[in-house]
Amino acid sequence: MLRMSTLFLRTLREDPADAEVASHRLLVRAGYIRRAAPGIYSWLPLGLKVLAKVEAIVREEMDRAGGQEVHFPALLPKEPYEATGRWTEYGPGIFRVVDRKGGDYLLAPTHEEVFTLLVKDLYSSYKDLPLTIYQIQTKYRDEARPRAGLLRGREFIMKDSYSFDLTDEGLDESYQAQRDAYVRIFDRLGLEYVIVTATSGAMGGSKSEEFLSPTEIGEDTYVRSPGGYSANVEAVTTPVPAPIDWTDAPAAHVEDTPDTPTIATLVDLANASHPRPDSPWTAADTLKNVVLALTAPSGERSILVVGIPGDRDADMTRLEAALAPHGVEAATDEDFARHPELVKGYIGPGALGPQARPAGVARGDEADGAIPYLLDPRIVPGTRWITGADAPGRHVFELTAGRDFIADGTIEAAEVRAGDPAPDGSGPLELARGVEIGHIFQLGRKYAAALDLRVLDENGKQQVVTMGSYGIGVTRSLALLAENNNDELGLRWPIQVAPYQVHLVATGKDQAVFDAAEALAGDLEAAGVEVCYDDRPKVSPGVKFKDAELIGAPFILVVGRGLVDGTVELKTRATGGSEALPVDDAAATVARAVREALA
Amino acid sequence: MLRMSTLFLRTLREDPADAEVASHRLLVRAGYIRRAAPGIYSWLPLGLKVLAKVEAIVREEMDRAGGQEVHFPALLPKEPYEATGRWTEYGPGIFRVVDRKGGDYLLAPTHEEVFTLLVKDLYSSYKDLPLTIYQIQTKYRDEARPRAGLLRGREFIMKDSYSFDLTDEGLDESYQAQRDAYVRIFDRLGLEYVIVTATSGAMGGSKSEEFLSPTEIGEDTYVRSPGGYSANVEAVTTPVPAPIDWTDAPAAHVEDTPDTPTIATLVDLANASHPRPDSPWTAADTLKNVVLALTAPSGERSILVVGIPGDRDADMTRLEAALAPHGVEAATDEDFARHPELVKGYIGPGALGPQARPAGVARGDEADGAIPYLLDPRIVPGTRWITGADAPGRHVFELTAGRDFIADGTIEAAEVRAGDPAPDGSGPLELARGVEIGHIFQLGRKYAAALDLRVLDENGKQQVVTMGSYGIGVTRSLALLAENNNDELGLRWPIQVAPYQVHLVATGKDQAVFDAAEALAGDLEAAGVEVCYDDRPKVSPGVKFKDAELIGAPFILVVGRGLVDGTVELKTRATGGSEALPVDDAAATVARAVREALA
Repeated sequence: MLRMSTLFLRTLREDPADAEVASHRLLVRAGYIRRAAPGIYSWLPLGLKVLAKVEAIVREEMDRAGGQEVHFPALLPKEPYEATGRWTEYGPGIFRVVDRKGGDYLLAPTHEEVFTLLVKDLYSSYKDLPLTIYQIQTKYRDEARPRAGLLRGREFIMKDSYSFDLTDEGLDESYQAQRDAYVRIFDRLGLEYVIVTATSGAMGGSKSEEFLSPTEIGEDTYVRSPGGYSANVEAVTTPVPAPIDWTDAPAAHVEDTPDTPTIATLVDLANASHPRPDSPWTAADTLKNVVLALTAPSGERSILVVGIPGDRDADMTRLEAALAPHGVEAATDEDFARHPELVKGYIGPGALGPQARPAGVARGDEADGAIPYLLDPRIVPGTRWITGADAPGRHVFELTAGRDFIADGTIEAAEVRAGDPAPDGSGPLELARGVEIGHIFQLGRKYAAALDLRVLDENGKQQVVTMGSYGIGVTRSLALLAENNNDELGLRWPIQVAPYQVHLVATGKDQAVFDAAEALAGDLEAAGVEVCYDDRPKVSPGVKFKDAELIGAPFILVVGRGLVDGTVELKTRATGGSEALPVDDAAATVARAVREALA
Repeated sequence: MLRMSTLFLRTLREDPADAEVASHRLLVRAGYIRRAAPGIYSWLPLGLKVLAKVEAIVREEMDRAGGQEVHFPALLPKEPYEATGRWTEYGPGIFRVVDRKGGDYLLAPTHEEVFTLLVKDLYSSYKDLPLTIYQIQTKYRDEARPRAGLLRGREFIMKDSYSFDLTDEGLDESYQAQRDAYVRIFDRLGLEYVIVTATSGAMGGSKSEEFLSPTEIGEDTYVRSPGGYSANVEAVTTPVPAPIDWTDAPAAHVEDTPDTPTIATLVDLANASHPRPDSPWTAADTLKNVVLALTAPSGERSILVVGIPGDRDADMTRLEAALAPHGVEAATDEDFARHPELVKGYIGPGALGPQARPAGVARGDEADGAIPYLLDPRIVPGTRWITGADAPGRHVFELTAGRDFIADGTIEAAEVRAGDPAPDGSGPLELARGVEIGHIFQLGRKYAAALDLRVLDENGKQQVVTMGSYGIGVTRSLALLAENNNDELGLRWPIQVAPYQVHLVATGKDQAVFDAAEALAGDLEAAGVEVCYDDRPKVSPGVKFKDAELIGAPFILVVGRGLVDGTVELKTRATGGSEALPVDDAAATVARAVREALA
């Protein structure tokens, strides 16, 4: 039994200055966590109790799905991560350590490499497969902007599992078993989620889905269609229109377009000076060329131009996903200064891509001076555009894709908008925000090939193993539970993860009240109920209730004035409802309520 | 139920090349751990199960002793460790990390500072005390020589607890409560231990005791006397003899002593050329001056000379404890070259200490060129010595301490020998070796003062809190359990920490045997017994027995040829004994045996 008189806890009436979101605010105020450094938290007794319950649910479902628990070091040598290229790809996103002998180590952000090597170390035959192993372990990422308390930290707990199969069908089955386990885990945690198609990013591999918990404060945007399509906005593909016959298209013509620094001013000028007979020009008729600076993991900087319809903005998140592991930002004045062929405000395809490149020079080879050029998928052959003429104050009209300009390829760079068609034809998209709580990947053979994990198949031939990788943010899930379950008074934990089930409050100064409460606490404990007893003698009822509500256990049991009439009061934190119970069978009644709530 | 057919395990018949000690050898061979890097290990499913049992025992006893569990980050900012001086004192012994913004961090080897700051953060009154909080957490030390598997690693698990009290008496009580808990923990683990007086080393503080597990492979040496004295050899103090009146002592005289490079040759020459009437000279009559190079945590190097009786060696371990946080090594030729006053082989007090220092120059200030000089406590005023005369080929006889030379102080530098008197007069010492599994400290007010942890006392006055710090090596304790419980066949776990209780082996190819074994495994599980069932169909009985013995569960239950007669065989791993059991009530009998063994 916890006792408030001795529990290592200090609740705060004020919000911490650095807390932007409710979970951060309340977990600190209610004494679950304390900040130790940016993105790094200490766990107080109450926090640790919730964490243990979340971990237990994750562990049970991993075991039920046939996973076997192992535990890897957090501090790992560079070599395996070098073999897969990730030592470099992670760039500044990981913590690196040099030991006293000069050896390079990292604090692992994820463990694909060493799981792969461990299986290679132990197993050698198809008979050993399939295998799924997992760990619940502390992970590290040197986030540029740690924020929102536990939601984006630098030291955090993840469950990561890895599956090993001989065949693609086997991988499908292992993937599905983990997916099913995730559904059970989040259902049991009482955490709302959507499963969306995702990109693989720096992990590599093919199929990938995310479990996102819908919330306004989420950093991820996802889409859904009425027909059941759902995807992270990073993974949305644009339906490609059919090419248009350009036989009768007018020739391109360059026009003076003074004072048109924006798409809006350009469209106004076009309609005023060069009107189109059938319909006015709109921003959708313009081709905007966005100049980006890429930073390779090695630190090398290069320029890329992306062409998108002028009525859409470039989406940096989608660009980052499309260009990973490169970093992406808008080009700076210095970048422009190094590329005088880019006439700011009047950039057109003439200075870009393969047509600006001497014959025989490959794409992406900047040594020839030509800047790589990628187009939004909507810019198909035959589409006609107003775009820059690569000269100050001049634009070109009716510039026709395929006929007048070509690019090095396509890229998903433009924003996705509500109402855009789903790529599978299942209707218009709607957008929402969420936080990633789980991510499952079919890695395929990338890591096994890089680290030479092979087994003998039934015919005695060496086969590269195919792998899956599956993560759950454990501390992040806990934070989301706090984020989704609170009100103006404090936290309202679902009973399955609450630090304890019943918060027993003794009010007033009457020793009989404290004696009765003490007895009741003992009876509840004996009935298997987790109790925190507020036995503080000189604390006012108001303070005790405030603490109980802030901490957020599902039931608050009050022993006070009603005792003279033989009753105690049971409050339900989630509903705010309360009822008087006869004190004599209060323990039995409350124990039953707890059991029912848990069922 | 574990099944050998799917358990993530590969037992090895060969010892790993790098394994020096039994625990390391067997934990790797039996599939409990795998090396990930020097001193850094991954935990396989069986290892994790043993670890969980060890942790559970530690946790239960900490809770029973009133400890409250918390959890701190491993990655911590420099500042608190700078405030106590340990950021520098640790020197190369810790892993340091720089984050993307240039902030300095460390992977914490122990957490005094941040526990202190957390209590300061939350508590402010004497009413909040006493408080004991603990964690079971991954710790990091960049050991110069990681060795012996889990016994001296660089990433390892510790239980560390910290007590906070207002008064010295309170600290005594908190210390005793932890000490009692440690006794219960090691008793429950079945781990033999001795409790010895220890030095506080870099931790600071006053009273300190170690729990050492006696073993030949231990790096620590400890002493015991018949009267109950026990101490780490580092903490043994030498009884100081009474000073001797030198009124009638002969004058010192310098003699030629050619070809006396060793104490033995010097004693021989002394007896041949300068015999003493009452008794022959022995090595105990010579004063050996040992030249040491110290390295401060800042990296600064300095010279110290230590004088000890010539019949004893200097003990580097005792010197390191005495001189911490400085590093100590024998002076090199380069060090000698910088100090021409040190005539190698003929160094005497004449060139050393305060008498070689101009008046008014403080000890330890090397700027004046005088080398600090410390003496073994046996060298009391009036003792007479043969020692170097600071000239090649010459020694001085009858040099009398106090009369002819003085030093800057005393130091415990000489080896402790079996038969030496205990400092408390409780008889002659005997020596043994052990491994430190627990260490408890009365830190006192060092950390609280450095970090300004104060509370209001009953009179409304600010008082600095007094603290204790208490550690248990969790993974090291597990390794010692393996070290102490094995034979030529493999591990022999005490049942309370075994990965499972019964290893059920089905032998032969008869399907009836496998059916019976499967049913028996189910019955055992239903009876609450932890079972690993070796269900592998095409593996020979010999291999199965070897694996069972290597893995080391306390009971091995064999279903095989006896089944036609209605019997199975129960083997006890610890004794090697076996008995036939009727198959029909085998589950009940084995469950009873397990319960009895656990009791």
